[in-house]
Amino acid sequence: MNIGLDMMGGDFAPLEAIKGIKLFRESDENIMLTLFGDEFELNNLIQEYSLNKDNLTIVNTTQVIDMHEHPTKAMREKPDSSIAVGFKYLATEKIDAFISAGNTGAMMVGSLFSIKAIEGVHRPTIGAYMPRENGKLGWLLDAGINSDCKPENLVQFAILGSLFAEQVLNIPTPRVGLINIGEEEGKGNILAQAAYPLLKEESSINFIGNIEGRDIFIDKADVMVCEGFTGNVILKLAESIYPLIKNRGIKDAFFDMFEFEQYGGVPVLGVNKPVIIGHGISEARSFKNMIEITKKMIEKDLVGKIKNRFKA
Amino acid sequence: MNIGLDMMGGDFAPLEAIKGIKLFRESDENIMLTLFGDEFELNNLIQEYSLNKDNLTIVNTTQVIDMHEHPTKAMREKPDSSIAVGFKYLATEKIDAFISAGNTGAMMVGSLFSIKAIEGVHRPTIGAYMPRENGKLGWLLDAGINSDCKPENLVQFAILGSLFAEQVLNIPTPRVGLINIGEEEGKGNILAQAAYPLLKEESSINFIGNIEGRDIFIDKADVMVCEGFTGNVILKLAESIYPLIKNRGIKDAFFDMFEFEQYGGVPVLGVNKPVIIGHGISEARSFKNMIEITKKMIEKDLVGKIKNRFKA
Repeated sequence: MNIGLDMMGGDFAPLEAIKGIKLFRESDENIMLTLFGDEFELNNLIQEYSLNKDNLTIVNTTQVIDMHEHPTKAMREKPDSSIAVGFKYLATEKIDAFISAGNTGAMMVGSLFSIKAIEGVHRPTIGAYMPRENGKLGWLLDAGINSDCKPENLVQFAILGSLFAEQVLNIPTPRVGLINIGEEEGKGNILAQAAYPLLKEESSINFIGNIEGRDIFIDKADVMVCEGFTGNVILKLAESIYPLIKNRGIKDAFFDMFEFEQYGGVPVLGVNKPVIIGHGISEARSFKNMIEITKKMIEKDLVGKIKNRFKA
Repeated sequence: MNIGLDMMGGDFAPLEAIKGIKLFRESDENIMLTLFGDEFELNNLIQEYSLNKDNLTIVNTTQVIDMHEHPTKAMREKPDSSIAVGFKYLATEKIDAFISAGNTGAMMVGSLFSIKAIEGVHRPTIGAYMPRENGKLGWLLDAGINSDCKPENLVQFAILGSLFAEQVLNIPTPRVGLINIGEEEGKGNILAQAAYPLLKEESSINFIGNIEGRDIFIDKADVMVCEGFTGNVILKLAESIYPLIKNRGIKDAFFDMFEFEQYGGVPVLGVNKPVIIGHGISEARSFKNMIEITKKMIEKDLVGKIKNRFKA
């Protein structure tokens, strides 16, 4: 297993990425890691943090895609950027997975154009963790990549989300809820109304019906499906709660779960290789967690299972 | 001024409605109130709570529309219900405004079919208060009545919301934000992309551009516009925060603002008379606040100002 890491992505790169690897190495010394970034800078940090160089490869890259660059343009104009080179390695199977806390758009461009969608998957998707009072996590998708959707897309999100919840979040037969504005079938906008019967018919998922805004943070559905507009508003609203809690000087185990930084990153589901996109402000713990999730995705062969599921 | 009140609506009716009137009377003895409901029951409660009967009229009604009845069907089959009779009084100008914490759907049916939309308003709308850390309130609309919208509808929501924020919430030149999934123009789903330039062109509002999920609870925009699907998910999610805070034993002035009960009710904006719809679980304080808001809407002639604004 060889996991590739963009060392130049994120607000505190490459320092926090190095520290994250150091943390990860405390529990796993064997997995091969391939680091994409400025070789000189990385070697200095490796030395400074006395990181063991065994099972560590550095691929020197000379360009960096900034957080606010136009994704397609940047990927074209910066072929020697850590993200572009990372995807080249992933596409040619020199690495098994690729992680970055850098430009999300560039990561999506790389995922869709260099790794490509799994045959049968119309719209790869990104999800988001949603905290629950009982300490568990829910999985919301789409979290902002597909802002206009057809009913069929929501069904595919449900399938992809269920596989992720089952394999990576260890939730057997995850309950799938359709995010809607009423409880009964027939409620909602045109999209939700049309998606409901399709979700009901889909035998490979455990569809429990509609869920509402009030059900997002309670343990009602494990996989919560909607188009990426509503999903992104929910995610960013949820992310805004922790700073408010902190500002008020409140300390609480449940509300600590709203610190999204701790989750590291989220996979692009529905593409041919494991790709993980991190928070822009990722710190050491995030990088460590991203490597852990990636390792689990590879161990469980999540991508293989998704391919099987969508095989014609 | 004569304000009509459905005394049979809400989980704790008519007791809490009577207690709410009692509270309201502490600061205002003069406004005429017309109470729709079971005369016997109401008179008993009036006596029990020693409510002064001056400026109080009871209109006896013999039917009640339950919270879960089908709105159109109920309005047709229960012509002597408190809601149906209330709207009859409102349509014939025997009262100047109508308040209910009962069946929201029936209140919408009454508003749209008996009071009707103001000429030029394509889609009357309901908003929702959104708490801010600085103690102020934002106004989100549509909160769930119009789940599929055209870009022009969002512009009308912005106009209606701005007039409400200015006249009733006392916010001069309210800042209007388009709820979206990115900051820059051009971001978002097809609806948001199309609505942005229309909002920018609309000279009667103070459009400040896109806002995101993370901006809902901070003081960025006073009026926050979206279709009713996203709006309803936001509202119900926001409403779910207070019970979570309470469950955790947290006491905090800002998070106390998430107890939506205190706001009483919200107006149906864009119809020809002031109509206020309350929470189903309304208690005394809610009823008092609903009467206060209604009084203010009448004093400021909000409906007249909306009519003027939409005059061809």
